[in-house]
Order: sequence, then C-alpha cells, then structure tokens
Amino acid sequence: MTRPLISLAAALALAAPAIAQEEELQGAPSPNEIVAEAPAGEWAAIAPEDLVVMTLAPDAEGNPREVIIQLMPPPFSQGWVANIRTLARAGWYDDISVNRVQDNYVVQWGDPNYDNPEAEGEEKALPEGLHRMTEEDYLAERRRSETAWFAWTNGPYAPHHGNFAGWPIAWNAEAAWPVHCYGMVGVGRGYSPDTGSGAELYTVIGHAPRHLDRNIALVGRIVEGIEHLSSLPRGSGALGFYTEEEFDKRTPILTVRVASDLPEVDRPAFEYLSTAGETFARYADARANRRDPFFIHPAGGADICNIPVPVRRAE
Amino acid sequence: MTRPLISLAAALALAAPAIAQEEELQGAPSPNEIVAEAPAGEWAAIAPEDLVVMTLAPDAEGNPREVIIQLMPPPFSQGWVANIRTLARAGWYDDISVNRVQDNYVVQWGDPNYDNPEAEGEEKALPEGLHRMTEEDYLAERRRSETAWFAWTNGPYAPHHGNFAGWPIAWNAEAAWPVHCYGMVGVGRGYSPDTGSGAELYTVIGHAPRHLDRNIALVGRIVEGIEHLSSLPRGSGALGFYTEEEFDKRTPILTVRVASDLPEVDRPAFEYLSTAGETFARYADARANRRDPFFIHPAGGADICNIPVPVRRAE
Repeated sequence: MTRPLISLAAALALAAPAIAQEEELQGAPSPNEIVAEAPAGEWAAIAPEDLVVMTLAPDAEGNPREVIIQLMPPPFSQGWVANIRTLARAGWYDDISVNRVQDNYVVQWGDPNYDNPEAEGEEKALPEGLHRMTEEDYLAERRRSETAWFAWTNGPYAPHHGNFAGWPIAWNAEAAWPVHCYGMVGVGRGYSPDTGSGAELYTVIGHAPRHLDRNIALVGRIVEGIEHLSSLPRGSGALGFYTEEEFDKRTPILTVRVASDLPEVDRPAFEYLSTAGETFARYADARANRRDPFFIHPAGGADICNIPVPVRRAE
Repeated sequence: MTRPLISLAAALALAAPAIAQEEELQGAPSPNEIVAEAPAGEWAAIAPEDLVVMTLAPDAEGNPREVIIQLMPPPFSQGWVANIRTLARAGWYDDISVNRVQDNYVVQWGDPNYDNPEAEGEEKALPEGLHRMTEEDYLAERRRSETAWFAWTNGPYAPHHGNFAGWPIAWNAEAAWPVHCYGMVGVGRGYSPDTGSGAELYTVIGHAPRHLDRNIALVGRIVEGIEHLSSLPRGSGALGFYTEEEFDKRTPILTVRVASDLPEVDRPAFEYLSTAGETFARYADARANRRDPFFIHPAGGADICNIPVPVRRAE
C-alpha cells in the first residue's frame, strides 16, 4: 500500500521510450507523477515511536527480511498501540512465528499456541502492564472537521469515508473508525467480549475485508516489506493455519523493536504525504479519474482502499 | 475467490469445541454455512469448454502446481475468449512463463519478450485466426432483467453492481461490463487502440483495481490454484517484472489446455452457485450483515468484490 500503482504505460515507456515519452507529453500526469512533484512541506515525518521493525528469519537464499509497521495515531486504538510497544519492549514478540497465511485474506503472527487449531503446546505468558480494552474502543469520537473527504470515495460500508492524519477512516453521525485496507495491521481476538491484547497480529493481503471494521481493533499498517508476508506459502489448515505437516513453513520472527529504541544509525525514517494538502487532493482525484495515456474510461470514483496514502523513506 | 471466507470463530470452534458449539447454536449461520446448505439444483455446472488448465513447473519441493481458469460466458469478451482457446489449442502458451508479480496488484504471464522492460529476445509469433477486438468490446449490452442485484453492493465505480450468470458486473444506463475483483483474469495490452490478443494474461492478487474496468478486457477468473500465483516472489523491476538478475524466479508454464480437449479422466469438473437463486441472495445478505457469533457490528453492506461467487469441484 505504500507504493502507489504504476500504470502498464510505464512498462511501455521503458520498452519503447520514444513513443511513450511522446504520449506522456500528450496525457495528464499519473497519480505517481503527481506525488513525485509534491512540495517537501507536504510530507510529514513519522515519529520513531510510531515505527516498529519486525525482523523475520532470512529467506531460503539467506536474504534478510524486514517488515516495518507504522502504528496508528490518536484518537484510534491507543490502548492496543501502547500494548504493542510494551510487548516489543518486553521482548515478548521475539521467537514467535507467522502461523497463518490465508489467500485473499490475512497473514497472522504471534504465539503459535494461541487461538490455533494446530496448537501443540502451552500459551506464552504475557508481560505485566497491558491495557484491557473494550469494544467501545473500536470506535473513536467523530472529528469530521479534521478530515479530508471526497464524496466519490463512499461505498456500501459507511455513509462517509476519508482520511484523517494520513489514515483511511469511515464515519457516521456518531463515530469514526479506521478501515481494513490492504496492508493494515489488526489485533487478533477470541469471541466477544475479548478484544485481544496486541500479542496476536495480522495484516490484510487481499481485497479489503471491510466486514471486520468495528469488529476488530486496527492498530497500524505495513509501510515496507509487506511482500515478505504476502508471498509466504498459504497454509492448508482451517483458516490458512499451517498444519502439523507444514510446521516447517512457519516463518520465525527474530525480533520486534520500536524504532525509537534502536541506535540512531539503525533507526528507519519514514514520511507520509499529508492527506490535508493540495497534492493529496490532486492525487486522489487522479486515482479516481485516470487520465494518463493508458486509460480510456476514467472510473469517476475510487473506494477509500484504492487511494493508498503515499508513504516513503525520508532522506 | 473460490472459497468463501471463514470467520475466526471457526478457529476457536476447533480449539475449544464445547464453547464454540454452544455459541454457534446461539448465532446466525455464517455465509459458508448458508452455501453448504444450498440444494443441489442451485449449483450450475461449468462447461468443460469454459475451463482452462494451466500447468506450472513443479515448485522447489517438487509439488505439482495447477491453476484452473473459468472463461467468461457471453455477452462478455467473447472474441478474446475465443482467442484464448485458439492459443491453447495451437500450443502457443506452452513454455511461456510468469514474468511479473506486483504486490497488491497483478501476476502476469505470457511471452517474456512482450511488453517487458526486461525483454532480451524476439517476440514469439502468434498463431493465425485470432480475432482483433475493439475498445467497444470491453462493454456489453445492458441486460438488467437477467441480473441479480442488491442495492447495498453499489460503490463509487458505477451506478449499479450485481451478478450476471455467476459473474460480478457493473452497469449504467447504456452498458454493462465485468469488474476487476481478486482472481479475475484479464488481457494485457499496449496503448490504445491496441486491445490485446489474449496471449498476455494477468490475474488480480490484491485489492480490486477497479480503475482498470472498461479499460482492459476481462476474460475469466481463477477457480482453483490461485495460491500458486499469488504467493510467487515479487519482482523488483518496474511494475513488478523480474529483472535480469531475477530471471531464475520466472515460473515456467508447461502447458495450457482447454478442459474439453483433455481425456475424460483428466478433465476437471466445477460448478458455481447460481447467482439468481435463493441461496445466493441469503449468502450475499450474510456477507453484508455478518450475524455469526464472532461479529458485533454487521457492516450493512458489501462491495461486489467482497461477495465472491461460490465455485467448487463437482462430484
């Protein structure tokens, strides 16, 4: 979700530069080209306290695999977000694993013995000091005045959709909530009234499962390295859990660290395109109405998950 | 897309059967449970002429990999669909490869030297007798009377969405067209007025890229084995093409055969849940309003790509 899509026209641009350059001059800029022109002042730094670095075991060829998660800002899910920092600082996530990969749905990681039909041992004890959240906390007070909103983002799931401080949200007359787009990170839970602690996490690797909105806490999104999760082999057990015969497919998670706890030299730096700025409005419009040369029929609209907020490494 | 999602509750049902069984008795049936109860007469057989078997090279552990595609029925894309049968029967697809895997977007296969920024040789010559299609053919005549439609499936992309003969479509006052959901198969093309032949194909492996609707021909969907494509390593070149250093990641395609051309014993048989039947209406309603025990807030709606048409192996 961090890299806006590039049209097939870009492939042709590389294969046949003369023709493509000419046609690009004739067409409107692509969403990517609009973002590339954003003034520096429209990029907002992400606080190191809001970045989490998850290091997986190297792949079969020995290549390192790092997944970087951005945690959600207030007013959303702050109890779970605090728990995730607590769990990371306690080293609780170290040596857990990816236990579930369900095609067109989610990748889930945590204690292999929690909520797992293939469990074979005892659950790992949680650290002290975790918040116990309620179902009320899936929702936040509505703050429409602070929200960038485009009427054509609305769909069947809520009366309004837009972005708040760089995050995709939905709202109605009473409340606002973050939405399940590709790459969003949420908190696994058992049956109501359980709301999960933050020890068990998942990310979306398929079409937005919006039926989960307001039913599970969303706590962040993957801003780099999602391909290390989305390309993992699917589990053949119920819900995509790896079966006993597939335990060797579980990907070990070596460490999970809050970026602000890392030595400065190892600390990743990211920024997002302000969703309140002029460039984001032009980008969103271009996503909804593709006028770059490859396109014939602009759609006239786009759902909120098809307007991913641009996030990039800061220099 | 062929397996409707199972709720997390099902995992708990396996981990803690006593509690879960009790709660299932209290809750409404899940979408899956509704489909499982469909009378036999609501399942419609898919003609062997509409099934294509794509055999990939075995994986690194020697496991076979087979992808089964269902071609689209009239009135949609029939010129390209005919071309795909012609290409398969000419053996043209044999020994091509998967050349592009772009996260949250598409997997593309075809001649590695067609439209590829990493091309290193000559394009493969096409067989005789292919139809040359026009951009008009992306659309079909509107046939609302034959369409199963639920108002709450509508989103920002078109005034109406529904299902026609088991396929997700959108329409306006003038025309109808198939839509880009997860697992749909489309025809790669160059710049307009090129519309592609059917030699270069892709499937959706992320959030529905609905901006491609009416801009590219959709010709079918993957009904089995999509995980063999969606879990492939992502390409690091432009648009997810494999770069020269990654040519060894290209997955060879050994053969592509129309099922009706196979000996009867090797011929796969599939059926889909009629989208005009009572069960589909109940299933779609349950997808939009999850009332099974895991859920607290039913969404009240679902976009067309979040109501995948159930498809299964026929006995």
